Amino acid sequence: MRQTRLDTARIRAARRLIDPVFLGTPLYRCEALESALGCAVSVKLETANPVRSFKARGTEVVASLLADSGARAAVCASAGNLGLALARSGRGRGIEVTVVASRSATVAKLDRIRALDARLELVDGDHESARERAAAIARHEGIRLVEDSLDIETCEGAATIGLELVEAEASFDTVLIALGGGALATGVGHVLKALAPGVEVICVQPLGAPAMTHSWHRRTVVTTGPTDTIADGVAGRRPIPAVLDDLLLAADDAVLVQEASIITGMRMLLDHAGLVVEPSAALGVAAILEDPDRFAGRHAVTIVCGSNVDMDAYHRWVGAAPGRKSC
Amino acid sequence: MRQTRLDTARIRAARRLIDPVFLGTPLYRCEALESALGCAVSVKLETANPVRSFKARGTEVVASLLADSGARAAVCASAGNLGLALARSGRGRGIEVTVVASRSATVAKLDRIRALDARLELVDGDHESARERAAAIARHEGIRLVEDSLDIETCEGAATIGLELVEAEASFDTVLIALGGGALATGVGHVLKALAPGVEVICVQPLGAPAMTHSWHRRTVVTTGPTDTIADGVAGRRPIPAVLDDLLLAADDAVLVQEASIITGMRMLLDHAGLVVEPSAALGVAAILEDPDRFAGRHAVTIVCGSNVDMDAYHRWVGAAPGRKSC
Repeated sequence: MRQTRLDTARIRAARRLIDPVFLGTPLYRCEALESALGCAVSVKLETANPVRSFKARGTEVVASLLADSGARAAVCASAGNLGLALARSGRGRGIEVTVVASRSATVAKLDRIRALDARLELVDGDHESARERAAAIARHEGIRLVEDSLDIETCEGAATIGLELVEAEASFDTVLIALGGGALATGVGHVLKALAPGVEVICVQPLGAPAMTHSWHRRTVVTTGPTDTIADGVAGRRPIPAVLDDLLLAADDAVLVQEASIITGMRMLLDHAGLVVEPSAALGVAAILEDPDRFAGRHAVTIVCGSNVDMDAYHRWVGAAPGRKSC
Repeated sequence: MRQTRLDTARIRAARRLIDPVFLGTPLYRCEALESALGCAVSVKLETANPVRSFKARGTEVVASLLADSGARAAVCASAGNLGLALARSGRGRGIEVTVVASRSATVAKLDRIRALDARLELVDGDHESARERAAAIARHEGIRLVEDSLDIETCEGAATIGLELVEAEASFDTVLIALGGGALATGVGHVLKALAPGVEVICVQPLGAPAMTHSWHRRTVVTTGPTDTIADGVAGRRPIPAVLDDLLLAADDAVLVQEASIITGMRMLLDHAGLVVEPSAALGVAAILEDPDRFAGRHAVTIVCGSNVDMDAYHRWVGAAPGRKSC
């Protein structure tokens, strides 16, 4: 039988490398969401930590192993959350972190990376340009290139969320996971397939950034043109072959959702659950909104994976609610 | 030496009666708040659970003991959060819960109480009128009256937050606690005095609802006229003598803050920490804002105690930020 690159025993061990502030995150039913969504919904909340996303689970593993090996520097390309998390994980371990980001990245994320004393380099173009530049820096300076989703630590760090879901012994039958590069989806999916195979693993990506979802359905890497989505955290267009291979084993389905559903999802999470989330974190709710029959009578966990959002944009997105006093 | 009514061993035991979904809440540094506040700030987040406040820690203890004794009904007066929590705790244990609230209580809280199938009775007047009516119902029906802050379970349930703070071994030297009836302040304060006596316990109340703070400073119960604050969760005007006695031992200080500071605090928690909070939960940040010299160079934990807020009112409060696009 084919297996993912991930290893459940190593994932259990990874937990010991991660600052506990990033572990044991809240998992709870949100009944106020349920009448609107027509199914039971639990939230796994990955935003109540110093970097406001799940990404530090992976960067803690990366930085811990790097520090053990005596490394003193690392570089990554990031839409924001990975860079923020790597900056935080590196800072506490004497690792100088360089983050390469697109000039069009979310300002709030870039500001928070700077505040963590990381070196920030902005490039023209999109996230793929940032990946190329980060690789060049790594080659030139002879330092570790941290590649999100390709580097197994980023997947296995994210996979610790899966362990927590399984250990919670909650009654859910479905887990909705934001799909971008694939670290979160392959990580959590791997653990669920290994330890709770009855749970359906559904990945959710924006229609405006569908590369990995198309690749999953065609079982081969499909690249796309420029992305067009507010969900900056998942906006890649060149899936990594090894990650796709893992995802084919770890996921039961991959679906695409419209921007309007993402915005409605963000607004529902604010109004009914009191949660400020970035667009990527609303993908799960968006998936339920677009296909309520599929989820009726079921109990879905949605992983609220990040809350690093520009507040002006956020207010613009959620402010135009029907029935909400508008500007 | 005088002692509070609370017992640390019983508080440890109480933890086993509480649904784990309400325990082990996030505690983390919020560096984005720190430059604005001029001191180190950690958040103890009590909103990421099914009732969106810390109150269920107490009602879980109440309902668990009630169920063990064979009781099938209970009644409480509540500004919302206690009623919501008791309704949730009772529902799972076959206890029929009646909540008496002021007709002017926060609509979002009342709606959520109704959604939990509790009996909700609204009275004219303020919270003190609700307390009288709840007592009458308890007498008439011969059922348990759950009195927030007076009933030791409500204090000892809240006190489990104190255990978590102490066990975190974080480097804080100050804890800021919203002060209303006193369950949270006496609970957390008791544990800190017992197990981490070097930590300063500062209670914070709105200037518009200052009864307990005045009582603490004069060391005798002071009642006030009608309250005038948006912080509905802490708006009492008749402190309970036994709770004041406990608070005199459990708190190092009690301070009053202005409404404008509460609103600025709510806005800062939204903009810099991505947290939607109800006014009571912003009292700690308000206290730092009003007396920055006192906190300079220190590390304060602020307990974010609830997020049950009417979203229309919330947007009205936080929407008028300087520099924020206003309506």
